Amino acid sequence: MTAQTMTEVEQRLLALEKHVGFLTDHIEIMQLIYSYGPAVDTCSAEAVSGIWTDDGVYDVDTGRLEGHAEIEAMVDSDMHTGFVRGGCGHVSGPAHIHITGDAAVATLYSQLITKHPSAEGFTVSRLSANRWELARTGNGWRVTMRTNRLLDGTEEGRDVLAVGIAAANVR
Amino acid sequence: MTAQTMTEVEQRLLALEKHVGFLTDHIEIMQLIYSYGPAVDTCSAEAVSGIWTDDGVYDVDTGRLEGHAEIEAMVDSDMHTGFVRGGCGHVSGPAHIHITGDAAVATLYSQLITKHPSAEGFTVSRLSANRWELARTGNGWRVTMRTNRLLDGTEEGRDVLAVGIAAANVR
Amino acid sequence: MTAQTMTEVEQRLLALEKHVGFLTDHIEIMQLIYSYGPAVDTCSAEAVSGIWTDDGVYDVDTGRLEGHAEIEAMVDSDMHTGFVRGGCGHVSGPAHIHITGDAAVATLYSQLITKHPSAEGFTVSRLSANRWELARTGNGWRVTMRTNRLLDGTEEGRDVLAVGIAAANVR
Repeated sequence: MTAQTMTEVEQRLLALEKHVGFLTDHIEIMQLIYSYGPAVDTCSAEAVSGIWTDDGVYDVDTGRLEGHAEIEAMVDSDMHTGFVRGGCGHVSGPAHIHITGDAAVATLYSQLITKHPSAEGFTVSRLSANRWELARTGNGWRVTMRTNRLLDGTEEGRDVLAVGIAAANVR
Repeated sequence: MTAQTMTEVEQRLLALEKHVGFLTDHIEIMQLIYSYGPAVDTCSAEAVSGIWTDDGVYDVDTGRLEGHAEIEAMVDSDMHTGFVRGGCGHVSGPAHIHITGDAAVATLYSQLITKHPSAEGFTVSRLSANRWELARTGNGWRVTMRTNRLLDGTEEGRDVLAVGIAAANVR
Repeated sequence: MTAQTMTEVEQRLLALEKHVGFLTDHIEIMQLIYSYGPAVDTCSAEAVSGIWTDDGVYDVDTGRLEGHAEIEAMVDSDMHTGFVRGGCGHVSGPAHIHITGDAAVATLYSQLITKHPSAEGFTVSRLSANRWELARTGNGWRVTMRTNRLLDGTEEGRDVLAVGIAAANVR
């Protein structure tokens, strides 16, 4: 065995390790994002806030929440627990994820689907554009900023999506 | 080249193989779960039942189905084929997947969306919490137990989600 | 170190590289498909058409679009921009993806969800079966043919799904 061969093995191992790390980041970010619905629909306030970094921001059209305490207060609020008691799901669509080193941007849709109060069936109460900005931390990927805006025809909702796919260099 | 170097190569290969196996499990479980909708909406009874192990259970609020024959009977039933003839989709949300060795738990939402019988457009007839428990078999990942409950405000739907994310150690 | 050992290292590296390539294909195809909604809902005509190969086809029940120019014209059309101005989301479900070498088939659902023109909330205006046929190109995965049909109870919608899962050998 020549030294050159061992250099090639080393190079291929390094390339594989980098590549596998990239795929792992994708899977880990998916798990983080897709845990939001089950956490919020069971009013698990700490499971929800733990998706964010300690000073992470959840910027919704209904209000801007900064840090874990404000996010947990939203989960515990009468408005949110009222939705849950009435029957609802915070249903995420699949995420478009773009990773650059220790940062990532996910662009996706979310819906608040609620039980119809008087009739059979459910209603799409809210359809929102979502942009999740994430950072790699010592405890895995966490959200630094999540921006949600209703897709109600105003510019704001479209901007959330446009910035997300621009960050991902989608042509 | 020293023996020590070869030991390092061996260790890195083993780590990569384990890691790639873990990622492959995620992708395979996603394909299994996301085949359910297309299979059931085309009344492909064996494609549906084959998602489960031979003695797998589909525990729905509308009835508990045990084993392939009962699952296939549901697909062939007048109720199900009536939905399909009327126009419908069994639409899954993206799955939160947690794998521990040869077992996995997936937590997700599913909707039964049906064509409005008299007007334009579609209706969310059912929104369900889903917990899929899976096992690695000689033929790949299969479902041993799938539990569905309507998110209609009762405790049962929330419990399906809560047990799912607790199994995944979502904080 | 024996030559035999090095042969084993080479074999394991090759297996890993092949396997990682397969997983990467899955992740890349997911990103391509999940970029469609954000691109079309921001009227980013070139971001939409760039999902397809130059001569790619988008075969919808509302018309068959061939090549980038026709796809971009759809994005710029009064009908599409009217939906966007009124408030809407082209929301994809998670994709069942089957890859064979340099070709792939993705089977999934898509919804056009629109803001209710007069009341609160949103409406599922369209629920479609989707089959995306993809090819590996020098610029990554691109769509050669996407077929959409309404799941309105007619045979066409079910056929889109049936062909998709048959291509994937879903039992």
